[in-house]
Amino acid sequence: MIRLSSSFIRTLREDPADAEVASHKLLVRAGYIRRSAAGVYTWLPLGLKVLRKVEQIVREEQDAIGGQEVLFSALQPREPYEATGRWEDYGPNLFRLQDRKQDDYLLAPTHEEMFTLTVKDLFSSYKDLPTMLYQIQAKYRDEARPRAGLLRTREFLMKDAYSFDVDDEGLDASYEKQRLAYQRTFERLGLPTVICRADAGAMGGSRSEEFLHPTPVGEDTFVVSDGGYAANVEAVTTPAPPALDEAAIAALPAMHVEDTPGASTIAKLTDFSNQAFPGKGPTTDSGEWTRYEMLKHLVYLLTHPDGSTEPLVIALPGDREVDAKRLEAAVAPAIASPFTDEDFSAHPVLKKGYIGPEGLGLEAEAGICYLVDPRVVPGSSWVAGAGEKDKHVYDLVYGRDFTADGTIEAAEVRDGDPAPDGSGPMRLTRGMEMGHIFQLGRTYAEALGLKVLDENGKSVVVTMGSYGIGVTRAIAAVAELCHDEKGLCWPRQLAPADVHIVATGKDPAIFAEAERIAGALEARGLEVLYDDRPKVSPGVKFKDSELLGVPTSVVVGRGLATGVVEVRDRAGGEIREVSPEEVVDAVTAEVRGA
Amino acid sequence: MIRLSSSFIRTLREDPADAEVASHKLLVRAGYIRRSAAGVYTWLPLGLKVLRKVEQIVREEQDAIGGQEVLFSALQPREPYEATGRWEDYGPNLFRLQDRKQDDYLLAPTHEEMFTLTVKDLFSSYKDLPTMLYQIQAKYRDEARPRAGLLRTREFLMKDAYSFDVDDEGLDASYEKQRLAYQRTFERLGLPTVICRADAGAMGGSRSEEFLHPTPVGEDTFVVSDGGYAANVEAVTTPAPPALDEAAIAALPAMHVEDTPGASTIAKLTDFSNQAFPGKGPTTDSGEWTRYEMLKHLVYLLTHPDGSTEPLVIALPGDREVDAKRLEAAVAPAIASPFTDEDFSAHPVLKKGYIGPEGLGLEAEAGICYLVDPRVVPGSSWVAGAGEKDKHVYDLVYGRDFTADGTIEAAEVRDGDPAPDGSGPMRLTRGMEMGHIFQLGRTYAEALGLKVLDENGKSVVVTMGSYGIGVTRAIAAVAELCHDEKGLCWPRQLAPADVHIVATGKDPAIFAEAERIAGALEARGLEVLYDDRPKVSPGVKFKDSELLGVPTSVVVGRGLATGVVEVRDRAGGEIREVSPEEVVDAVTAEVRGA
Repeated sequence: MIRLSSSFIRTLREDPADAEVASHKLLVRAGYIRRSAAGVYTWLPLGLKVLRKVEQIVREEQDAIGGQEVLFSALQPREPYEATGRWEDYGPNLFRLQDRKQDDYLLAPTHEEMFTLTVKDLFSSYKDLPTMLYQIQAKYRDEARPRAGLLRTREFLMKDAYSFDVDDEGLDASYEKQRLAYQRTFERLGLPTVICRADAGAMGGSRSEEFLHPTPVGEDTFVVSDGGYAANVEAVTTPAPPALDEAAIAALPAMHVEDTPGASTIAKLTDFSNQAFPGKGPTTDSGEWTRYEMLKHLVYLLTHPDGSTEPLVIALPGDREVDAKRLEAAVAPAIASPFTDEDFSAHPVLKKGYIGPEGLGLEAEAGICYLVDPRVVPGSSWVAGAGEKDKHVYDLVYGRDFTADGTIEAAEVRDGDPAPDGSGPMRLTRGMEMGHIFQLGRTYAEALGLKVLDENGKSVVVTMGSYGIGVTRAIAAVAELCHDEKGLCWPRQLAPADVHIVATGKDPAIFAEAERIAGALEARGLEVLYDDRPKVSPGVKFKDSELLGVPTSVVVGRGLATGVVEVRDRAGGEIREVSPEEVVDAVTAEVRGA
Repeated sequence: MIRLSSSFIRTLREDPADAEVASHKLLVRAGYIRRSAAGVYTWLPLGLKVLRKVEQIVREEQDAIGGQEVLFSALQPREPYEATGRWEDYGPNLFRLQDRKQDDYLLAPTHEEMFTLTVKDLFSSYKDLPTMLYQIQAKYRDEARPRAGLLRTREFLMKDAYSFDVDDEGLDASYEKQRLAYQRTFERLGLPTVICRADAGAMGGSRSEEFLHPTPVGEDTFVVSDGGYAANVEAVTTPAPPALDEAAIAALPAMHVEDTPGASTIAKLTDFSNQAFPGKGPTTDSGEWTRYEMLKHLVYLLTHPDGSTEPLVIALPGDREVDAKRLEAAVAPAIASPFTDEDFSAHPVLKKGYIGPEGLGLEAEAGICYLVDPRVVPGSSWVAGAGEKDKHVYDLVYGRDFTADGTIEAAEVRDGDPAPDGSGPMRLTRGMEMGHIFQLGRTYAEALGLKVLDENGKSVVVTMGSYGIGVTRAIAAVAELCHDEKGLCWPRQLAPADVHIVATGKDPAIFAEAERIAGALEARGLEVLYDDRPKVSPGVKFKDSELLGVPTSVVVGRGLATGVVEVRDRAGGEIREVSPEEVVDAVTAEVRGA
């Protein structure tokens, strides 16, 4: 039994100054957590109880699919992370340190390397596989902007699991097991999630999905279509329009440079084109020019993890902007920053404001990487800068008049864009990443030499999956989802206690009866939080009870004289009166869902 | 049920190359742990099960005395540790790091500072106290010489508890509660411990005791007397002989310098004295000179945490050596290193080889700290170097002819030395520190401003205690205590499983019966480890079973044909045959201690 009179629990009436989102405000105000440094939190007694319950649900679902729990240190040596490139690729997000011998260490952001090495240490045969290992352990990432309480922290508890299989079919099976385990886990946590295709990013690998919890405070944007397509916006692929064959391309009008006085923006260029060349627009039935055809060229400086830089030119339809996150994912682990005036000076071939493939000299300039939006297909016709002021090229056909080094998924995704699988238009939604499952494939095993002998005695590289759930973030997500203006409303399976007993007034008989009820409920196996504070007003006690958010509370007060106590439902707000004799049975039944 | 055929468990026949002690060898060979870096270990599935059981025992005993569990991050900011001086005092033992903003952080070696600040954050009145908080959490110390597997690591799991009281009586009561909880904890873990007075060292504070587990592999030396005195050797105080009063001192012979040709060692000086001045020795009835009276002077360079240095001269009876650990504890947080030739050059007043109080010029040289052994009391008479070659001073009386800046407990403690409390001669024993309880007092609360209002509305500084148990080390200690040449022998309460079922041979009926027994035992609530490996010889299975050390095993093999299975007791080695029908009852009873 937790007695409020002697517990390390203090509630606050005011929101903490640095809190923006409800979960952050309420978890601090209700005394579940405290900040100890930017993005680093302390778990107070009630918070720790919730944390352990989330952990246990995650653990049970991992055990249910044959996961075996292990525990690695947060402190790990540099070498394995050097071997996979992550020591560098993680950039400033990695906490690095040296020991007294000046050897390099890190605080692990995840443990792919260490799991790989440990399996290599223990296993040597295909008979040892498949195996699924996991841990629930503190991870560290030096986020540039830790924010929103537990939603984005620099230390967080994570369940990270890793599967080891001898072949691709095995990996598919392991991946599917985790996918189902994740669905069950989030269902038990009470967190609706959408499984979205994800960009595998710096982790390498192939198939990758995120479990996104739709919420307005989410940092991720994802898309869903009515036909069932769902993807993180970084992972959305753009359906390419049909390309033309050589004969059809040859039949298109030849490109020609035109004077376009004053058409210094996409909008002006579109207006000008409609005035100067009405009815000639190549993509509409009416021949109207649209912003789409005005091929926009943007220049970035790519900085690679080793510090080297190179320019990157991106071309995309003029009606689209670049989405910073999609660009970030597309170029990772490199970082793209917009070209500065200084950068333009260093690359005189790139004429700021007039860049187009014609004036770009790209083919002559091997050092400049030129990537186009997937909508730029062979035979598509564009208008672009001609490399000098007030001149544009018309009828510029991709595959005939210019080519690029490849395509890039950097253009923004819009509400209504078609899903790549033909399942209809996509809707944009905000979400929070709760889990992420990856088919890593053989990247880590190759880098670290994890091989086993197959049935024929041949050495084969093991294929791996990696599966993460943010345990602390899940708590924030539940708090975000389950609260009202008065405070938290925990779902029963995560509440720090099953029942909150509130004794009000000063009558010793009331406290004696509350004590009896608390004891009887505890004897039934329920977890009891008992507000036994002797000199605190009923109003304060009720407010605290609402703030703390235990699903069921029992108020023992003035009504006792007339033979009733109140059973209150936190979420629904219902209050019913029962006799003190019945309350233990009633509450037990309610908690047990009977 | 853990099935060996598909578990992440591999045993090794050979000891790991770097292992010296049995617990290290066996925990690695049995697949409980793996090293991931110097002094950093990974917990494999069986090891983690043992770890969780130890944690749970520790947790229950903390809860039983009203401890409230919280959880702090390992990563903490510099400032609070700066305020208490520990940022510097911990020297190279502290893992320090910087974040992307170049702010300083550390990996906490313990969390006094953070608990103090959190209590300050939540509490403000004497009515809030006493409170007892604890966590079970990974600690980091950059040990110079991590060794012996889990016995001395750089990351280790620790239960650290902190008590907060308004006055000294409260602290005494909290301390006593923890002392009893520790006794119960170690009893439940099956670890005999001796409660020893301890040196409070860098933690500050007053009363301090260590729970030392006597073991030859222990790094600590402690003393016990038949009369019940027990102390860490660093904490042993030296009973001073009776001092003389001024009149008695005045009656002693005057000091005189004598030629002592060739008496360049304590032994030679003693022999010389017996030849030159027979019957004049001041401490024996016979007047024989002993090495005791030959006052030995040793010079050290003290390095303070801030990097500043100063010489330290220590005088002790010539029959004693300095004990490095006692010296270390006596000067902490400074570090003492023997004076080098260079140091002597820098301090010409200290004439190497001829140092004595006479030639020392100590009073003239305020910068040199001079400390004497506690046996050097007013009226005690000594022989010491006269500051030049082949000359010594005789009848040099402390308090008359020389004085020091104070006393120091740096001399070795010997078997047979008298206990300071008069409880008889002390015996020296090797032990391992399993727990440590401290009365911190007000040091931390003062440094960090933790005050509450007392009954009269007056602001008072809170007094604290700090209480630690090395959770991972406890596992090593149990493994060290409970093993034989064949492997580990876990006590039931810590074993990774209750029973180990071994199916031998190739007969499918045997495996079917073993499976049935394993399932039936699991249905009774027992934790079952089942060696179901199909193509492994009985010899290997028995060896693995002995190495893994589950207390009870059931062998299902050839005997099944004649209606018997074997129940084996790992520790005692007894084997009894029971029928397959009886084995589930028999094993359940054995495990439950019925």
